[in-house]
Amino acid sequence: MKYRIEKDTMGEVQVPADKYWGAQTERSRNNFKIGPSASMPKEIIEGFAYLKKAAAYANYDLGVLPIEKRDAIGAVCDEILEGKLDDQFPLVIWQTGSGTQSNMNVNEVIANRAQVLKGFEIGEDEQFIKANDDVNKSQSSNDTFPTGMHIAAYKMVVETTIPGVEKLHATLAKKALEYKDVVKIGRTHLMDATPLTLGQEISGYAAQLAFGLKALKNTLAHLAEIALGGTAVGTGLNTPKGYDVKVAQYIAEFTKHPFITAENKFEALAAHDAIVETHGALKQLAVSLNKIANDVRMLASGPRSGIGEIHIPENEPGSSIMPGKVNPTQCEALTMVCAQVIGNDMAIAVGGMQGHYELNVFKPVMAANFLQSAQLLGDACVSFDEHCAQGIEPNHKRIKELVDNSLMLVTALNTKIGYYKAAEIAQTAHKNGTTLKEEAVRLGYVTPEDFDAWVKPEDMV
Amino acid sequence: MKYRIEKDTMGEVQVPADKYWGAQTERSRNNFKIGPSASMPKEIIEGFAYLKKAAAYANYDLGVLPIEKRDAIGAVCDEILEGKLDDQFPLVIWQTGSGTQSNMNVNEVIANRAQVLKGFEIGEDEQFIKANDDVNKSQSSNDTFPTGMHIAAYKMVVETTIPGVEKLHATLAKKALEYKDVVKIGRTHLMDATPLTLGQEISGYAAQLAFGLKALKNTLAHLAEIALGGTAVGTGLNTPKGYDVKVAQYIAEFTKHPFITAENKFEALAAHDAIVETHGALKQLAVSLNKIANDVRMLASGPRSGIGEIHIPENEPGSSIMPGKVNPTQCEALTMVCAQVIGNDMAIAVGGMQGHYELNVFKPVMAANFLQSAQLLGDACVSFDEHCAQGIEPNHKRIKELVDNSLMLVTALNTKIGYYKAAEIAQTAHKNGTTLKEEAVRLGYVTPEDFDAWVKPEDMV
Amino acid sequence: MKYRIEKDTMGEVQVPADKYWGAQTERSRNNFKIGPSASMPKEIIEGFAYLKKAAAYANYDLGVLPIEKRDAIGAVCDEILEGKLDDQFPLVIWQTGSGTQSNMNVNEVIANRAQVLKGFEIGEDEQFIKANDDVNKSQSSNDTFPTGMHIAAYKMVVETTIPGVEKLHATLAKKALEYKDVVKIGRTHLMDATPLTLGQEISGYAAQLAFGLKALKNTLAHLAEIALGGTAVGTGLNTPKGYDVKVAQYIAEFTKHPFITAENKFEALAAHDAIVETHGALKQLAVSLNKIANDVRMLASGPRSGIGEIHIPENEPGSSIMPGKVNPTQCEALTMVCAQVIGNDMAIAVGGMQGHYELNVFKPVMAANFLQSAQLLGDACVSFDEHCAQGIEPNHKRIKELVDNSLMLVTALNTKIGYYKAAEIAQTAHKNGTTLKEEAVRLGYVTPEDFDAWVKPEDMV
Amino acid sequence: MKYRIEKDTMGEVQVPADKYWGAQTERSRNNFKIGPSASMPKEIIEGFAYLKKAAAYANYDLGVLPIEKRDAIGAVCDEILEGKLDDQFPLVIWQTGSGTQSNMNVNEVIANRAQVLKGFEIGEDEQFIKANDDVNKSQSSNDTFPTGMHIAAYKMVVETTIPGVEKLHATLAKKALEYKDVVKIGRTHLMDATPLTLGQEISGYAAQLAFGLKALKNTLAHLAEIALGGTAVGTGLNTPKGYDVKVAQYIAEFTKHPFITAENKFEALAAHDAIVETHGALKQLAVSLNKIANDVRMLASGPRSGIGEIHIPENEPGSSIMPGKVNPTQCEALTMVCAQVIGNDMAIAVGGMQGHYELNVFKPVMAANFLQSAQLLGDACVSFDEHCAQGIEPNHKRIKELVDNSLMLVTALNTKIGYYKAAEIAQTAHKNGTTLKEEAVRLGYVTPEDFDAWVKPEDMV
Repeated sequence: MKYRIEKDTMGEVQVPADKYWGAQTERSRNNFKIGPSASMPKEIIEGFAYLKKAAAYANYDLGVLPIEKRDAIGAVCDEILEGKLDDQFPLVIWQTGSGTQSNMNVNEVIANRAQVLKGFEIGEDEQFIKANDDVNKSQSSNDTFPTGMHIAAYKMVVETTIPGVEKLHATLAKKALEYKDVVKIGRTHLMDATPLTLGQEISGYAAQLAFGLKALKNTLAHLAEIALGGTAVGTGLNTPKGYDVKVAQYIAEFTKHPFITAENKFEALAAHDAIVETHGALKQLAVSLNKIANDVRMLASGPRSGIGEIHIPENEPGSSIMPGKVNPTQCEALTMVCAQVIGNDMAIAVGGMQGHYELNVFKPVMAANFLQSAQLLGDACVSFDEHCAQGIEPNHKRIKELVDNSLMLVTALNTKIGYYKAAEIAQTAHKNGTTLKEEAVRLGYVTPEDFDAWVKPEDMV
Repeated sequence: MKYRIEKDTMGEVQVPADKYWGAQTERSRNNFKIGPSASMPKEIIEGFAYLKKAAAYANYDLGVLPIEKRDAIGAVCDEILEGKLDDQFPLVIWQTGSGTQSNMNVNEVIANRAQVLKGFEIGEDEQFIKANDDVNKSQSSNDTFPTGMHIAAYKMVVETTIPGVEKLHATLAKKALEYKDVVKIGRTHLMDATPLTLGQEISGYAAQLAFGLKALKNTLAHLAEIALGGTAVGTGLNTPKGYDVKVAQYIAEFTKHPFITAENKFEALAAHDAIVETHGALKQLAVSLNKIANDVRMLASGPRSGIGEIHIPENEPGSSIMPGKVNPTQCEALTMVCAQVIGNDMAIAVGGMQGHYELNVFKPVMAANFLQSAQLLGDACVSFDEHCAQGIEPNHKRIKELVDNSLMLVTALNTKIGYYKAAEIAQTAHKNGTTLKEEAVRLGYVTPEDFDAWVKPEDMV
Repeated sequence: MKYRIEKDTMGEVQVPADKYWGAQTERSRNNFKIGPSASMPKEIIEGFAYLKKAAAYANYDLGVLPIEKRDAIGAVCDEILEGKLDDQFPLVIWQTGSGTQSNMNVNEVIANRAQVLKGFEIGEDEQFIKANDDVNKSQSSNDTFPTGMHIAAYKMVVETTIPGVEKLHATLAKKALEYKDVVKIGRTHLMDATPLTLGQEISGYAAQLAFGLKALKNTLAHLAEIALGGTAVGTGLNTPKGYDVKVAQYIAEFTKHPFITAENKFEALAAHDAIVETHGALKQLAVSLNKIANDVRMLASGPRSGIGEIHIPENEPGSSIMPGKVNPTQCEALTMVCAQVIGNDMAIAVGGMQGHYELNVFKPVMAANFLQSAQLLGDACVSFDEHCAQGIEPNHKRIKELVDNSLMLVTALNTKIGYYKAAEIAQTAHKNGTTLKEEAVRLGYVTPEDFDAWVKPEDMV
Repeated sequence: MKYRIEKDTMGEVQVPADKYWGAQTERSRNNFKIGPSASMPKEIIEGFAYLKKAAAYANYDLGVLPIEKRDAIGAVCDEILEGKLDDQFPLVIWQTGSGTQSNMNVNEVIANRAQVLKGFEIGEDEQFIKANDDVNKSQSSNDTFPTGMHIAAYKMVVETTIPGVEKLHATLAKKALEYKDVVKIGRTHLMDATPLTLGQEISGYAAQLAFGLKALKNTLAHLAEIALGGTAVGTGLNTPKGYDVKVAQYIAEFTKHPFITAENKFEALAAHDAIVETHGALKQLAVSLNKIANDVRMLASGPRSGIGEIHIPENEPGSSIMPGKVNPTQCEALTMVCAQVIGNDMAIAVGGMQGHYELNVFKPVMAANFLQSAQLLGDACVSFDEHCAQGIEPNHKRIKELVDNSLMLVTALNTKIGYYKAAEIAQTAHKNGTTLKEEAVRLGYVTPEDFDAWVKPEDMV
C-alpha cells in the first residue's frame, strides 16, 4: 500500500496514495473504528453532492467564486451522483455528531478530484481548489449535514416510500372492490362476530394506508426546508447576501424537489424535528402495516388447522424439515420491517431530544435510522404487494362454511326479540352444538319462517 | 354494606345497593383487580356521556327511540358531564381491550339513574329504560369506545395541549424579539462557537414549537372522525339509515368540536391509527421541549460554576441540605413529562400495531396513555411558561464577558486571510491563554486596525 | 378555607390550616399544577417513612439526635405507614426531578405532626422538631429520594410482582404436566406443523416465566443497594461516621428486606441504573406474557370460526350488541399491561440516560413508571391466573380432529423416503383435498401398512 | 452472466452458474428485494457454520451420517469460518422470519461446495451430499436459526462487548484513583453544589460500568442455551437419541464457549427471551454510557465559555468553518451509539413479544439488532477509551478557581449554625456578588477564624 502525506490544521497524516480523500477523512478513519466501515449512507453523500454543486453555483452567482472553480466542483459532484467515486467515502455513522468529517470527506474528495481532472497530481502543493476555502465556501458542517440529510430523506420518502405504499394501497383498494360481496364471518377479540364482506375487511386496510400516506405527506413541507445558509450557528456568517434563498433554488432545480430555505436557521441546526416528524409518520405506517400483514397471515393460516379464509401465493418451500409446507413469508418480512421502524423511531427520538444550544450532534444516527426506515417500508410494501397482496384470493368454500355456522348471526334478532332472548338462543346453541334456528324455534322465540327472513348474513353487512 | 341483586345474560350478581351500576360493571370490578381502582380516565366517561346523549337524539330523530327515553338518557348524560355521578365509574383501564365493560358501566348507570329520576327504585323489575336495548341502541362497545376515545382525545388536545403550547410559544416569541440584539457566544458540540444573539437562540425554540403545533394540528382531521355507526364490526348492523352522520352531528353540536362520521368504519374499529398519528405529534413536541428545557437549565446554570448567561425565576428553596440553592425545577418537571410522553408513544405503538381482524383490543391503554401525554404536555407548558420562561432574563455582564473572550470570533477572518491562518491564530491564543488580537498581530497576519474592523461580534450575528 | 402562615428560606407562604405540610410543600403545590394532584406514588411516601425513621434511629445511635426526637419522628413515620396521614401528601410526580419537594413534604409533615403529638399547635414558633435540622438530619433529597425509590421498588417487586408471576407460573407448570399426553397439531408461521402435546406447548410458557423470574431476581442485589449516607453529592457530607451502614441496617430491619448501603454513593445519586436494570427484567416478563396471552386467546378462539383447541373460563358477557358472545378478556387486560410496561421501559431509559454530573433529576418519573409496571404485572398475573389460566381445558374433540387431518404428519416420512418424496405427497394431498395416506399409497412411495406404522402423531412428540 | 438450473420441491430456478447456492436461496433473492443485499449479518452465517459442523459430527457419532459426509460438511464449514465463501450468502434480513432461507442458503452452499471439493460439478445430478437430507439432517430452520443466533450473539458479547466495556472501565477506575484528591465543585441540577473530588466523580462512572458488566454477565447463562435438537416444533422429531446434548457439546468445543442444550426446546423456538434479556443489559450499558459521555463533554466544554474542568484529547479539527475548534467527537460517537442501542432494544421487544404458537418469526430482525448493538457498544467503548478517556486530565487551575468561589461550601455550616442562617449567608453573598466568608462575618453568624476552620472544601469530600 502506498501513501502520500496530507496536512490539515493539526498537522500531517498519511493517506492511501490512490484515494482522493485528505487528512481529515483519514483522521476520522483512524479515530472511529466503530462498526462496519463506510456505514455512512450513500444517500447522504449524494445529498452532499447536490448541495456542494448548488453552493458552488450560488457562490458564483453572488460573485464569491470564479466560474472555473464552480464548474470544476460541479463536475466532480456529477461524478459522485453517477456513482463513479463510491469508494472514496470510507467513513462511518459513528463519528462526530455534526457529520463534520463526512462534510470534510466530500470537500477533500471534490478538491483533490478537481485537481486531477485539471491535470494536477492529488495533493499537489499549489492547489487549484481548496477543500475548506472553495468547496466549503459559504458553508459549515453544521448547515451542510442537515441539508444533505433533508435532501436524502426527502428523496427517499418521495421516491421510494410513498410509491411503495401507494402501490400496495392500490392493490388493496382493488381487492376491496373485487370482493365487496363475499360475505364472511367477522371476528372481534379473535372471536366470531357478526358478518361483513371480505371487501369491507380489506377496505379497512386500504383506509389505513390512505391515512398513513396523508399523514406522511403532511410532514413534507417541514422536511423540504433546508438549513444551508445558516453556516456555523444559524446566523449565516461568511455567506454573501441572498445566498440561502439562491442555494435552495439550485438544490430544488438539481434534485427536482421543492426544497426551500429554512425560515429559521437556528431551529434547522439545533433541532431535527423535521426528521422526528416525518419518521413519526413512517412509524404510523409501520403500525398499520403490522396490523394488515398480521391479519393476512391469520386469514391465510392452515391449510387444515387454521382460519383458511384466503389463499396467498406460495412463493417458496417453507420448511427445511416439513415437506410441502408453505408459509406467509412476505407477511413476516413486512412485520420484521415494522419492528425495525418502530425501534428506529425511538433511536431518532433519543437523538432528537438531546440537541444542545446551537447544534444537535446526533445527526448521522438520526439520518441513518430515517433512511433505513424509509427504504425498508417502501421496498417491503412493493415486495408484499407483488408476492402476496396481489395474489390474495378468497377460499369461498371455507368462508361460506364458517359464516353459515356462526352463532353471532343471532345479533340480527336483537331488534326483533331483544338482547336477552337473543343471548339465550346463542348460548343454548353453543352449549348443545346445534344451530341458532333450531334453538330459536325450540325456545319458542321465533318461527322458522321469521328466522329465515330475519337472519340473513348478506343483509347484515 | 348493603347489596341488591342485578342480572345479566350470565346470571345474578350482588351489587352495592347505593350504586347505579349493574351486573356487568360489578363482574368487571371483581374480575379485574389490576392496579388502582377507577383508573379509566374520566375524560373517557365524559366522552361516553356526549355520545350516549347524541345516540339517543339520533335514535329519536330516526324513529327508533321515544322522546321520553331520549330525554331521560340526555338528562343523566348531563349529570355525568356536570360531575354529579363521578363515583359511579369504578372500573379500571386493565379490563377487556374493547372497553366493553366501561360502555356497559355507562349504560347501566344511565339506565338505573334514569329509573330513579323517573321515581322508580334502582333495578326495579319492570325497567323504564334498558341498558342494552335503549341506552346502547344502535351502538356496540366496538364503536362507542373509540368514539369516546376520540372525543376525549380531541378535546384534551384542543382544550389543553394546544393552548398550553401556544402560551409558551407566545412567551418565547416575545423573548426572541426582546433580546434580538443581545450578542452572546454561540455553542456547538457544547464548545464555544461564533456569536449569535440571545433573541436568535430563543427564536429557534419558538420555531420548534411553531412546527410542533402545525404538526399537531395536521393530525386533527383524522382524530375528528368517529366510529359511531359502525356497531359491532363496522357494517352498522342494527342502526337506522342515516344514523352515523346524524349522531356525529349531534356530537359535534354537544361538544362544539367538528366531529364527523368516519368514512371507513372498518378502519375506525380495527385500528387506532388516528391515536398513533396525533400522539406522534405529541412525541415530537416532547422532543422539542426536552431540547428547550435542557438549554434553559444549562444557560441558567451556576450561579458561579456554570454558564450563567440567563437568569430564571427562583421559585422555591432547592435543597434540603444545601442552604441557598435554587434549581431549575420547572425545566426538570418539563423534561420528566417529555420522558413520559416518549415512553407513552411506545406503549401506544405497541397497542396500535396489534389489532386483530375487525377490532383493536388495546383501546383503553391507548386512550389512557394518550390522555396523560396530552394533559401533561399542556399543563407542563403552562407551568414552565408561568414559572420559568416568562422570567428568563439575560445576565448581560456574564454574556459580554464570555463573548469578548471567545476564540471563535476568529471565524470572521476566514474570508480575509483563509481558514488555515485563522486556525493558527486561534490555536496559538488557546495555547498561550492570550487574546486573538494579540496573536493575530504577533503572527503578522493582521494589523491591529484591521482586526478591530473585521472582528466585531455584533457584525457576526 | 382557613390558612396559617408558614416560612422557609425564601419567605412566607399561606398553608391550609388543617394540613401538616409547610411552606415548601405549598410552594410546590402552587408551582407544579401538572396532571392530577397527589400523583406521587404512595409507595414512595412509605419508602420515605421507613427511611426517616431509620435515619432518626441511626442519628440517635451515633449521638447526633436526642432520644425524644428519635421517638417522635418514629411515631409519625409509623402513622404514615399505617395510612393515617394519607391526605398530607398532595404533591405530584412532575415537580423537581430530585424529588426534593416530596422529601420536604415528608419532613414538614413529620415535624408538624410531631409537634401536635407533643401538644403544640401546628407551626408554633418554637418548634420542638425542625423539618430540615432534625427530620432531615444527615440526609439530603439527593440520597433520600433514591433510597425511598429503591425501598418502594424492591418491596413492590418482591411483594407483588414476583408472587404474582410465580402464581401464574405454578398454574402453567401444573397444566403442562396435566396435559402432557394430549397430542395436538403444532403451528409454526401460524401454519400447520408437526404435532406436539398441549402439555409441551404450555411447558414453553412456564419456561418463559421461569427464565423471567430468574432474570428479575438477578437484578435484586443492585436494587437492594441504597444511597442514604451520600447526602448532597455522594460524599456523605454532614453525616456522622458509620451512619450509612447503620441506617441501611435499620431500613433492612424495619422493612424486613435485605437492604445494604451502596458501595459507591456517587453512582447511587447520579445514575439510577438499578431501576433501569430491574425494569429491563420487567420488560422481559412483559414480552413473555404478551406471547403467552396471545397464544391463549388464539388457541381459545371461536367458538365456531376459530382455532378452538382450548376452553377458557367465561367470566362476563362479551358484547353489548352481540348476544352470547364471550371474549378472552383476561388475555386482553394482560396484553394491555404488557404494552404499558414496554412503554414504561422507554420512559425509564430516557430518564436514566440523562443524569448530569452528580445527580439524575428524573427520579420521580422513573420511580412512578417502575412502580406502575411492577404492580400491574403482579396484579395482572394474578388476575389472569385466577380468571383464565387455571380454567384452561383442552377441547379434546377439536384437538383430535385437527391433528388427524394434518398434512404435516408427512414429516415422519423424511427419514424413510426422503424430503422430496414426502413433500410431493403433502402437496398432492393438499391440492386434491385428500389424506396423506391416500396419496402416499397412490404415488407408490409407501405401503398402507408402513404408513400406519410410520406416521403416528403420538410417536412424533 | 451464465446460469444453471436448480430444483427444489416447487420446481426449477435459474441460478448464477458461479455460485454455490441453490434454488431456495435464489427464490429468496428474487422474492425479498428489501433494503441492501446480503444484509444478513455474517456472524449469523458463521454461527451456522459452527452448528452445521457440530450437527454433522453428532449425526456421525450417533450413526446417522457416514464419516465421509461428516468430513465433507466439516471442511466446507471451516472454509466459511475462514471467510473463503463470503460472497455465497446474498440474502437479506427481511426474509422469512424463521430464517429458513438463510438456513437453506447455508445447506445449499455446503452441499454444492462439498460436491466440488469432491471433484463433481456444482449441481451434478447424482449428488454426493444433499442439502436437506444430509447437511440439514436432524435439524430444522426452527432450531438452527436460533442456535446460530445464540452462537453469534454470545460470541459478540463475550468477544467484543465485554472486553470493550472492561477496557473503558479499567481506564476509569485508574483515573478515579489518580484524581482521588483533586477537590472540585459538585453540581446537582446542573447548579453548584458541595464539593467532591474528580476521582470520586469518575468512580461513579466506573461503578456504573461495573454494575452494567455484572448485569450483562448475569444474562449469559440463558444465552448459552441453544435450541438445536428441537427441530420443527421443539419435540426433536427426526433426531437420534442423545443428539441435542451431543451437538451442544460439539458447538461448545468448536466455539470454545460454554453452550449447552436448552432445557425446554419449546421455549427456545417460540420465544427469544434470551435475546431480549441480554439486550436489556446492553440497553442498561447504553443508558450508563450516555450519562458518562455527556458528563465528559460538559466537563470538557469551553475552551473559554464552558465548564472547562477537564482536558480531553484533541483528535481532529472540529469545524469546517471555525478555525481552531476542537470538539468532543468521541463523546458524540458514543452517545449516538447509545441512541441506536436504545432504539434497537425497542425493535427487539416488538419482535420478541409477537411469537405465535410454536415459533417466533422475528428471528432475523432480533438477531441483526442484537449484533449491531453488541458490536457498536464494544467498538465505541474501545474508541472512546483510546481516543478520549485515557487522555482525560484535570484543568487544575480552573477547578481550583471554581471550587474556591462556590457558595455551596456554606453547607459545611449547617451543623454549626443551622440550615436557615447558612441559607441567609449564601443568598446574601449571591445577591451581593461577595464571598461566603465576607457575608458570614458581616451577618455576625461566624467569626473569620471559625469560618476558615469550618469551611474547607478538602474536608467536605
